[in-house]
Amino acid sequence: MNELLKSLNGEQIPELIAQLPQDDPAFERAIEVVRFAPDDCLISPDTADRYLYILVSGRVRLVVFNKEGRSYVTSYLDPGSVFGEDALIDFGEKPRSHVHALEPCTVWRLPTEQAHRFADKHPVLALGMLLTLGNRLAQVENRLEEVAYKRLPERLAGELLRLRRYYNNDQVRVSHQALADTLGTYRETISALLRDFKRDQWVELGYRRITIKDPEAMAQLAGNIHD
Amino acid sequence: MNELLKSLNGEQIPELIAQLPQDDPAFERAIEVVRFAPDDCLISPDTADRYLYILVSGRVRLVVFNKEGRSYVTSYLDPGSVFGEDALIDFGEKPRSHVHALEPCTVWRLPTEQAHRFADKHPVLALGMLLTLGNRLAQVENRLEEVAYKRLPERLAGELLRLRRYYNNDQVRVSHQALADTLGTYRETISALLRDFKRDQWVELGYRRITIKDPEAMAQLAGNIHD
Repeated sequence: MNELLKSLNGEQIPELIAQLPQDDPAFERAIEVVRFAPDDCLISPDTADRYLYILVSGRVRLVVFNKEGRSYVTSYLDPGSVFGEDALIDFGEKPRSHVHALEPCTVWRLPTEQAHRFADKHPVLALGMLLTLGNRLAQVENRLEEVAYKRLPERLAGELLRLRRYYNNDQVRVSHQALADTLGTYRETISALLRDFKRDQWVELGYRRITIKDPEAMAQLAGNIHD
Repeated sequence: MNELLKSLNGEQIPELIAQLPQDDPAFERAIEVVRFAPDDCLISPDTADRYLYILVSGRVRLVVFNKEGRSYVTSYLDPGSVFGEDALIDFGEKPRSHVHALEPCTVWRLPTEQAHRFADKHPVLALGMLLTLGNRLAQVENRLEEVAYKRLPERLAGELLRLRRYYNNDQVRVSHQALADTLGTYRETISALLRDFKRDQWVELGYRRITIKDPEAMAQLAGNIHD
């Protein structure tokens, strides 16, 4: 790990992980390549300690359901992310996140016992997990800051711009309910705000689709947007 | 790491880290034992990549200052926590957290170059960091849930009960401003709510001190409290 760490920045870790199957035939044999369709659930709290996952392509969303049955999105993860940390460590608390595919996803899946062995052999896997956790932490901290200090219209504009960037497209696939979950409010409130945005010609609304027409105006409302 | 991981739950990691100086004389020579008084700043964003820290005794608070100059507490860390993850990985973003001592603290400090070497030699250090990040993430997620779904009086009661547990004492050392920072609101709002709590004989108020007199009543208001 020494040589690795000395030269390593976060961007290189996903590349090194992507090379593992070429570098280590045993790793290639151990991983199962699994594909998921949009909205499929990759991990639920009940299955979180069975596999370690490496996201090869596509994006996923982490969702927490609270005791009152409400859900909220805590973070989005990009290709190269390593999750299923409960497969490596018993954190002493029941895992809470569900992981859903946002778009078609391909993952490498390693059963827990194998995950231990390969985390030992390839420290870059633990580093990848560290990086993913750091990334999740930064996103949740940013959401906490927004929810504490911004009004809802600002946060909604910010969230739509973030989704636009994630999808790399002016048209984003998202329901009003999912936006409400992400922002910790009610669907009706989101629908009312979106009608305002539409009236101002900032967006066009479709079924589970929103097209962003005036990102500049929305950026001005949103203020500073963290990832 | 194999044997280690197979048998390891989160609780054992701090114990294993605590044994490192006995197990490895080079580690003992490399660490610097540093003490901090309450409210001292252990890490600021500018110094975050210089050292890896292991909290031996005492508790710390992680605080983020946003661009508007407001601050908010994101998490509390217990002895055994490993932080300064920027000393190991360049996350590609400027670190944002300040780490402040909540009470008298003793830490082991490892300069970045040494941290690399010892993280290689002792995988338990990377696991300790993974555990600490997981712990921070759980706390920030819980705060996000509370801020989204609970009213301020409930959150204030919950925060005071959390502090009571952290201090293991009915009397907690906290200013109204610090509570406002933690809960993402204004000092005046917190002071007004605390006067209500005092009127109901739930608390006694002193200078930078609050004594909890009726934890049962406060727990009933607070509802589910996560760590």
